[in-house]
Amino acid sequence: MTRLFNDPAAFADEALEGFALAHRRWVRPVTGGVVRSTPGAAGQVAVVIGGGSGHYPAFSGLVGPGLAHGAAVGNVFASPSARQIRTVAKNAHTGGGVLLMYGNYAGDVLHFGQAAQQLNAEGVETRCVAVTDDISSASAAEADKRRGIAGDLPVFKAAAAAAEEGRSLDEVVRVARHANARTRSFGIAFGGCTLPGADHPLFTVPEGRMAVGLGIHGEPGIGEQDVPSADETAELLVSSLLAELPEGVDTADGARAAVILNGLGTVKYEELFVVYRRVAALLAEAGIEAVDPEVGELVTSFDMAGVSLTLCWLDDELETLWTAGADTPAYRKGAARAAGGPAVLDTVSETAGAEAVPEATDASRTAARTVVAALTALRDTVNTHAEELGRIDAVAGDGDHGIGMSRGSTAAHRAAVEAAEAGAGAGTVLAAAADAWSDRAGGTSGALWGVLLHAVGTALGDTDGPTARTVADGVGEASAAVRRLGGAEVGDKTMVDVLVPFADTLATATAEGAALADAWDRAATAAEGAAKATADLVPRIGRARPHVERSLGTPDAGAHSLALIVRAVHGVLAGH
Amino acid sequence: MTRLFNDPAAFADEALEGFALAHRRWVRPVTGGVVRSTPGAAGQVAVVIGGGSGHYPAFSGLVGPGLAHGAAVGNVFASPSARQIRTVAKNAHTGGGVLLMYGNYAGDVLHFGQAAQQLNAEGVETRCVAVTDDISSASAAEADKRRGIAGDLPVFKAAAAAAEEGRSLDEVVRVARHANARTRSFGIAFGGCTLPGADHPLFTVPEGRMAVGLGIHGEPGIGEQDVPSADETAELLVSSLLAELPEGVDTADGARAAVILNGLGTVKYEELFVVYRRVAALLAEAGIEAVDPEVGELVTSFDMAGVSLTLCWLDDELETLWTAGADTPAYRKGAARAAGGPAVLDTVSETAGAEAVPEATDASRTAARTVVAALTALRDTVNTHAEELGRIDAVAGDGDHGIGMSRGSTAAHRAAVEAAEAGAGAGTVLAAAADAWSDRAGGTSGALWGVLLHAVGTALGDTDGPTARTVADGVGEASAAVRRLGGAEVGDKTMVDVLVPFADTLATATAEGAALADAWDRAATAAEGAAKATADLVPRIGRARPHVERSLGTPDAGAHSLALIVRAVHGVLAGH
Repeated sequence: MTRLFNDPAAFADEALEGFALAHRRWVRPVTGGVVRSTPGAAGQVAVVIGGGSGHYPAFSGLVGPGLAHGAAVGNVFASPSARQIRTVAKNAHTGGGVLLMYGNYAGDVLHFGQAAQQLNAEGVETRCVAVTDDISSASAAEADKRRGIAGDLPVFKAAAAAAEEGRSLDEVVRVARHANARTRSFGIAFGGCTLPGADHPLFTVPEGRMAVGLGIHGEPGIGEQDVPSADETAELLVSSLLAELPEGVDTADGARAAVILNGLGTVKYEELFVVYRRVAALLAEAGIEAVDPEVGELVTSFDMAGVSLTLCWLDDELETLWTAGADTPAYRKGAARAAGGPAVLDTVSETAGAEAVPEATDASRTAARTVVAALTALRDTVNTHAEELGRIDAVAGDGDHGIGMSRGSTAAHRAAVEAAEAGAGAGTVLAAAADAWSDRAGGTSGALWGVLLHAVGTALGDTDGPTARTVADGVGEASAAVRRLGGAEVGDKTMVDVLVPFADTLATATAEGAALADAWDRAATAAEGAAKATADLVPRIGRARPHVERSLGTPDAGAHSLALIVRAVHGVLAGH
Repeated sequence: MTRLFNDPAAFADEALEGFALAHRRWVRPVTGGVVRSTPGAAGQVAVVIGGGSGHYPAFSGLVGPGLAHGAAVGNVFASPSARQIRTVAKNAHTGGGVLLMYGNYAGDVLHFGQAAQQLNAEGVETRCVAVTDDISSASAAEADKRRGIAGDLPVFKAAAAAAEEGRSLDEVVRVARHANARTRSFGIAFGGCTLPGADHPLFTVPEGRMAVGLGIHGEPGIGEQDVPSADETAELLVSSLLAELPEGVDTADGARAAVILNGLGTVKYEELFVVYRRVAALLAEAGIEAVDPEVGELVTSFDMAGVSLTLCWLDDELETLWTAGADTPAYRKGAARAAGGPAVLDTVSETAGAEAVPEATDASRTAARTVVAALTALRDTVNTHAEELGRIDAVAGDGDHGIGMSRGSTAAHRAAVEAAEAGAGAGTVLAAAADAWSDRAGGTSGALWGVLLHAVGTALGDTDGPTARTVADGVGEASAAVRRLGGAEVGDKTMVDVLVPFADTLATATAEGAALADAWDRAATAAEGAAKATADLVPRIGRARPHVERSLGTPDAGAHSLALIVRAVHGVLAGH
């Protein structure tokens, strides 16, 4: 278990701070993560990696010459926000464009995708590649839905080494996709990690049993069996990977592969070496040459007891990139070309409110006051119910919904107050609240609430006073955006189960001519009913723990919190 | 716990094999450990480190240019044998002499000391330096009794970097002693590791409590307290080390120190970084500059939950050596000078029986048959009681006494049979048995039984047939040698409590004119009484676990096994 921490809420920030202090030779801290202390050469593609905290040396430990130019680091097991990613990317960028790389998890896909959109809009050419190496997380036919685990390393490294060679952004993206297409991992677990401040593990595996294909955050695996011997473990790992060779790989004539035997936390070095002994023999028997094998802890999950094997099938290009030098805090190889740039760049900061407040009409400024009042009610409701939300979420999720919503709504309220005091209209106030929410809350729900508030803000704008119709349109936009980005539909036991009937009822009521407060009341009633009804559903997507059937009888936490919030906002609208 | 293994008895060997397979770029396996794949320059001092398995990256992970030339690796938590150390040293030696370095534990001191004696006798100039950094293991007044923990790294590295510069053996020894004198560590633990095949941890600390100064094999600490915050942990570690500055270190004018924050196994990277954040601040406040800090797992103990802080107080010489490049499987820094030697040296093997059998008289050859019969009885008795010995040992020790004695006596018997069949006399047969015992058994008791049999063998020689008097003299020599090397006296609850009255009674009885079998009978009776009496004692030395008072009422396992053995041997003597 994780025992050494101060305030658990500050854990990820303090860990990053300590990490940067210990590794000043390689990195310097910026808001949201770290970048190389000596930047890449001017015009070099900047490879920016990232994800949640708790996976060291992923992601901050992989920054340095020959590997990443920067790492955006979120809270524990939570994606960094789009704002964090943007800040890191801008500090890493030296004019050659940016490639954002991360494991394929919903929250990361959302936030890195948003950051890329925003960076491109600001003139920084940016592309995204998500790593999808874990073959147990989806079938080969749906390989793009697979999670990223220890295969992160060879895929990041291939792209970064190509960038170091001075290749173009298009070329680096091609290499990243090519490496990802030829990288496969398979893992097992004996038990989960205990997060800072938690009093029980994130998941458990019965004593003497082993979960096959379980994800590093406890995502469902594909089976369970008795704990095997080290040799049998090696045989399971190797045979699983040899059963699914990537297109174009044929071992008949003797293939070559980068091999990573990765410990998740408490499976220790000597155990890994005992397993590797048999892995090496099995690969040799199959005619596969292990090139620069790595046996150790490369993508961890706190003190999780687990091990995974990764094979990155090399062609000449990938072998050159895999064997190229690298010099980072946690991964060093050969002589890294510390491509010199201009000493140390000035830090580019990206703080809320740094931009000028756009023009706004008096009508929109008046509406902004209502928006602030609504966000106050929202925050208070969330804080009142935070513990309840956490309890509900813990049934099938990781129990952090209350904390995340509280952190997000508090930050959103503060940003809205500041923007309104600076004279912003309703649209800008909501945009500021949206950014602050996704920045501070982290995780998927933080991203989705950011998207939701942004959509409503865009519909309101800073010019006209809002009408029932513009509000209903904005909520309709928000409903569509959340479905598009989150990938959930009605029936999946998520906030979408409430958002869709809420938006639809609001649209119908306003189309029938109801005043905003009345229309909102009807829509809130529909939302409350829909939230209760999620108790009859079983989650179908997302980072749910095994045996999600146990959540039958309990509503979805995100659905429940949305229903509470729209009812609280009704109080504000009815009062105005 | 350790979950991935095949046959637990083969764990250390298989781990070393897998390690060497994964790191062929750096090391090649030799009997007893590994040496650099590319040896040091001819005439360079060879720095050979070593100790038990289970502490990776100590010791095999620290072999390569800029660090060790070889590592001798014993069984799990057991010293390598003198034979293993000799083999590794001979393979690492390129003509400049050998420096053996290891943590200051009884078994290591014995075996490395024996190996040095033998290497010197064979013309390979060899010196020893034991690391003594753990300030909680003895007072400053008895600093030479302190254990070696994570301070191994800076002390090994200083000596190795000096060797890499081409300095003489005297100079390298001076540097090693100087670095050791300026290196201090202090650690805490939350729980112990579970060894391969064991079903419970080596030691436990109550939930929510923390042991202060506990050793990495569960040796007694200096206190226990509630688990503190990360910041409080940092404060405890830093203040403990600042309270005992080495001679010549003064922080008033701003000192410089190599800093190592070491995780023992399940205290993970992010936790270490949170602790380091405060360590760095406290050191800065005290005017101490952290030079090339290391935060990670450098000397582990399987999945032990613990952390230690090491400061190596630098002067100009030590700073140059600490910051010099190194390139090993687990520790890499800057550009290591891979000082080229002659490609790869032939492996020097050191196998039992390689030497010619010395001349022996018929009388001594006849006596050798009695020796073989005695060793057969010894082995059978040990195997009959192995489980009981393990059970007794587990009360205050690590429960491996039965296994170790069984392994040692079986190997000793086999070697004795071979030597006798080759025509050796009694002295040579006992010497062969002694070497095999300490080589295969490992640990302190293995070394002591090797010393014991050697002493008796030396007294018997290969010329005269043994008399009651020469046997009694040999046992007297053995008693003195075991006390000298093991450091225990009567009353410390060890085998010495039996060996001394046995030897004394044997001497008295033979002086009184008793025949060997009768004298031995009286001595064996004294031994049995003395073994029973150890139940009233509390261990005072050695690797005893905390709360050793609980062993009151149980005899010492080593004392008990010795009493069983001398009685079994009496059966042989009475029959002849």
